[in-house]
Amino acid sequence: MSAHVSSGLDGVIAAETRISGVDGEAGELIIAGYPLAEIAGRASFEEITYLLLYDSLPIASVLTDFSSRIASRRTLPPPIFDLLASAAKSQVAPMDALLMAAATLSLDNRSSCPNDDEAIQDSLIAALPTIVAAYYRLLQGKAPITPLPELSHAANYLAMITGEDPSEPAVRAMNTYLCTVADHGLNASTFTARVIISTRSDMISAIVGAIGALKGPLHGGAPGPVLDMLNEIGTEERAENWIRSAICDGRRLMGFGHRIYKVRDPRADVLAAAASQLYSADADRKFYSLAMHVEKTALRLLEELKPGRRLHTNVEFYTALLLHGIGLPSVLFAPTFAIGRVAGWIAHCREQQKLDRLIRPQSVYVGAHDRQWTPVELRA
Amino acid sequence: MSAHVSSGLDGVIAAETRISGVDGEAGELIIAGYPLAEIAGRASFEEITYLLLYDSLPIASVLTDFSSRIASRRTLPPPIFDLLASAAKSQVAPMDALLMAAATLSLDNRSSCPNDDEAIQDSLIAALPTIVAAYYRLLQGKAPITPLPELSHAANYLAMITGEDPSEPAVRAMNTYLCTVADHGLNASTFTARVIISTRSDMISAIVGAIGALKGPLHGGAPGPVLDMLNEIGTEERAENWIRSAICDGRRLMGFGHRIYKVRDPRADVLAAAASQLYSADADRKFYSLAMHVEKTALRLLEELKPGRRLHTNVEFYTALLLHGIGLPSVLFAPTFAIGRVAGWIAHCREQQKLDRLIRPQSVYVGAHDRQWTPVELRA
Repeated sequence: MSAHVSSGLDGVIAAETRISGVDGEAGELIIAGYPLAEIAGRASFEEITYLLLYDSLPIASVLTDFSSRIASRRTLPPPIFDLLASAAKSQVAPMDALLMAAATLSLDNRSSCPNDDEAIQDSLIAALPTIVAAYYRLLQGKAPITPLPELSHAANYLAMITGEDPSEPAVRAMNTYLCTVADHGLNASTFTARVIISTRSDMISAIVGAIGALKGPLHGGAPGPVLDMLNEIGTEERAENWIRSAICDGRRLMGFGHRIYKVRDPRADVLAAAASQLYSADADRKFYSLAMHVEKTALRLLEELKPGRRLHTNVEFYTALLLHGIGLPSVLFAPTFAIGRVAGWIAHCREQQKLDRLIRPQSVYVGAHDRQWTPVELRA
Repeated sequence: MSAHVSSGLDGVIAAETRISGVDGEAGELIIAGYPLAEIAGRASFEEITYLLLYDSLPIASVLTDFSSRIASRRTLPPPIFDLLASAAKSQVAPMDALLMAAATLSLDNRSSCPNDDEAIQDSLIAALPTIVAAYYRLLQGKAPITPLPELSHAANYLAMITGEDPSEPAVRAMNTYLCTVADHGLNASTFTARVIISTRSDMISAIVGAIGALKGPLHGGAPGPVLDMLNEIGTEERAENWIRSAICDGRRLMGFGHRIYKVRDPRADVLAAAASQLYSADADRKFYSLAMHVEKTALRLLEELKPGRRLHTNVEFYTALLLHGIGLPSVLFAPTFAIGRVAGWIAHCREQQKLDRLIRPQSVYVGAHDRQWTPVELRA
């Protein structure tokens, strides 16, 4: 065919956005006007969410109102717990359970007006941590923990997982993680949400679609394998040989390289600082040292064996380190990513709704032509 | 910004496909090599589904096996009925109920291998009619009907809605409808499914995302309003004045015009023939005559009042007429569309899986720059 086909849509600009900007050559991520480093570690997830949705940081009274508005929607309609219990009995994966539970949020008819988008957006932001934490406990045969409205978003999520008061360093690390991944340009899940809402469909549909896209290993599914790699390497002495073999055997080294960033991913810096702080307060310093050693060795060997390929430590490497340090099992890494990213998804939905333009590319037909019907009894 | 932004992706070719081809200028729709008119009214939905999935029409024994493979997966895991009952209690809209129930199909662990894509695809094709019919009955306080494996796909769907043996003309009309809408290029829901599966996510996630996109009024949500319009017009004598006012007041006339077809939508012809046949066997011939009169009047007035705009009767007009003639309430129009289109969605998922390429466009950041952090207590 002579028509130009962009089967991955690389280089195609599908949206103008005020929500976040990614400069892969400069290694920069702007979150609604703020360089990531300017806000990460300082802002609460509630503040970042407000910023993404409304394009400015809230004053104190507004932040208090917004935070309690979200917190008031942390409880789930009872049928969702029954569904999660069935899912746990079938040992459904946490991302699948999150997908199905999020899809049932239209059962929540507390909002008197079913088209109250703000109530739905608040519910989506508030409910994802409750779903993930409740499901994780059900998987282990434990009862879900009732959400605590007086805790911050990050603290409540951790409390609902463990059933205990989370430590201050763990809360700080979780908060930094959620802020760091809250938005990142037009990634595949965000794009999915925008395509769905562009048909004038609703936010629940858009977010459920985004969760489905995030589930894919090419998108949100990679931090788990980083941890597997670190565990497999096991000790600093084994790192050089293990990594050298992996690269020479053509295996992909988890946690290095990014489709967009050709320099160091700015999120890696923020998460590295958070991890360093977290592990300094923790007994598991040995694991941190191993990870640092693996990173250093991998970067050196990648430069030696794949010169010019510009493979840097990516966000997944430090995500694995940070979430492991907080005490999260790797099955919760992708669902926790969704808990942060939902803020960006909803901001993009709002932006797309204002634009109100159907996203509908073309395909080119390359199949057969002019086939003729043969009734089934005459086919051979 | 100097970069070219394609915010609706119009004219961007995002996929090569062998599944279907749409030529909007020629008014042609090719389904896997067959012009639509060559197969519609002749093929069963099971045959068309097989054709879309495997790119050839099945011989008799293969068709029998395929049909019973699908039919054997019509029953739903019991927790889905509990969920649908909760949804009916909250008066959730049928498309929302379909979305949530489809998302729970990963509860079905009959397949010994959870990655058995063929089992999952069969379940999706088979389960959608069961979900829609069961939910419609629950909404009316009636018990769902157990699927009948010996009936065809179209007949079983109708039987599960009414609890009665469907008439032969109704089954034939439903079968033609499902075949006619089974695939249509890279529409927004099909594109959604391809974006989701391109992350190496699973088919359930992709189909749930597609249902969410189809829900939008700009995509699958328009046949209902056609019926509202016909009912509002009421009699042939009122048509001219009603339509003239609608056009002059700038209201969009439902059932006319299409983003892609600049001549008559080939699906409209097929559905018009099916409707003519169905209504000839039916007492409600008066409604059919009204619709014919409205169509003729609308086309004449559109030509008079919007000359050169090339507005033709679209698929929604005849969808409304045909599904109403079968006896379906308009709340089931969009879910019935999904029951047909799922065949195309899955075929596109399979094609995208073979390509194995992430769909990930770019965005361009047009927001603020270099904002500086102010702690909340200092904000004004």
